[in-house]
Amino acid sequence: MKHLLTLSYLGTAYSGFQVQPNTKTVQAALQFAATKIFDTPCGITGCSRTDSGVHANEYLAVVEEHGKASIPESAVARAMNTYLPKDISVFRCISVPDDFKIRHEVEGKEYLYLVWNHPCRNPFLSDRALYYPRKLDIEAMRKAIPYFVGKHDFRAFMASGSDIADTVRTITDLRIEAEADTVKIYVSADGFLYNMVRIIVGTLLEMSEGKISAERLEKAIETGERSLAGRTAPAEGLYLNRVFLNPHALNREENSRA
Amino acid sequence: MKHLLTLSYLGTAYSGFQVQPNTKTVQAALQFAATKIFDTPCGITGCSRTDSGVHANEYLAVVEEHGKASIPESAVARAMNTYLPKDISVFRCISVPDDFKIRHEVEGKEYLYLVWNHPCRNPFLSDRALYYPRKLDIEAMRKAIPYFVGKHDFRAFMASGSDIADTVRTITDLRIEAEADTVKIYVSADGFLYNMVRIIVGTLLEMSEGKISAERLEKAIETGERSLAGRTAPAEGLYLNRVFLNPHALNREENSRA
Repeated sequence: MKHLLTLSYLGTAYSGFQVQPNTKTVQAALQFAATKIFDTPCGITGCSRTDSGVHANEYLAVVEEHGKASIPESAVARAMNTYLPKDISVFRCISVPDDFKIRHEVEGKEYLYLVWNHPCRNPFLSDRALYYPRKLDIEAMRKAIPYFVGKHDFRAFMASGSDIADTVRTITDLRIEAEADTVKIYVSADGFLYNMVRIIVGTLLEMSEGKISAERLEKAIETGERSLAGRTAPAEGLYLNRVFLNPHALNREENSRA
Repeated sequence: MKHLLTLSYLGTAYSGFQVQPNTKTVQAALQFAATKIFDTPCGITGCSRTDSGVHANEYLAVVEEHGKASIPESAVARAMNTYLPKDISVFRCISVPDDFKIRHEVEGKEYLYLVWNHPCRNPFLSDRALYYPRKLDIEAMRKAIPYFVGKHDFRAFMASGSDIADTVRTITDLRIEAEADTVKIYVSADGFLYNMVRIIVGTLLEMSEGKISAERLEKAIETGERSLAGRTAPAEGLYLNRVFLNPHALNREENSRA
């Protein structure tokens, strides 16, 4: 049996989603809880890797289990939560076909980057937003939007050391919302390179600071030169915000039966 | 010299505001930071005690110092923050007359009680809201408002063991706002008895649960019988939200000079 879970987590205490030896990960916590409630070893597959300290408002993961216990679908979320720590919570569970492969069905994702833009720290947002004391120039940052949106080679916006061959991605939306002392940067794309959102945000900050011009940004995208893009913004402000599944992913079984 | 600080803090890690031996308190953290920046031992007086685990969106405290260093008023907040932990932040500092006594000048306070009202936990609100899985009956809770608002003897809404003689207080406002999965309860009064807001919130929850009727609430207020009121809601959802100072408090010195 395969189950698709929708969950949220505060990533502060975790070394990212994916299991690694000798460190806390979200995947390991889910594996532990699923194994408890289905009373059998369970495999967990996530929709995305997230880095150490990155949060998720919406994350999708698949549990594969061959347990004898049959737990009603509606009870899985709350049962999982009894075995999960307080910083991870499952909100929904639906059954999916046995051949459901989450990585094949994800068509895009939206990340949110949260900035606390005030001269004084916000004690409620430490480890949950970038604390940026200088007033951001939102208009200067918005000038970047038309350069980023669209299908481009984003090699310049990838952490050095990555060995991915195809660095072309399509950013479908980039939005900057400023309200009171909070700035929210939303980036949607069909896929993301390693550290791509954090480097985009770092570039936007340097545009606000007058260090990167629109011309330089254009050149960064054209040449793929990492040094032309901005710094890597810290993980603490980053949230996986939404996951866009193939709209047919969840009714394929019914279709094939019809 | 006396300085009036406006600060916020996340109370999770603290045994309340007031200094106590062998435990972390907000007052001790402020004393440490003030002593560092004014380079002399400093006294700190708070506007209110808050309990262990209670938060403050707005808290007022007075620093009294006799240091030789003269720090511009505008620099005090940021200087304090360099010596404060991430869960306490000073937002403003103004100088006040030497005879300024914060406890005399506070005319009222507003508390906020935050409830996460959803079947599944919110990982971003653990220790920051009460997690209440059953759907709250907001209309049933709002029936309590006319009984609470006004000048009453609130003895029934005070933790047992308190030895305060005068238990009459005036609640100037009680408001319940429900939006999506969050319920916010605001209570303003000229003063609060020990655990008063938490017992009011516990009573509202029991009205939602059908355990306490409007008649019983009326009788609790009339008789002062603690057992007629509701349970004490946990500290984690409680925020000191605003402090109402005497409007003349901050210009009394100028007045007396005039």
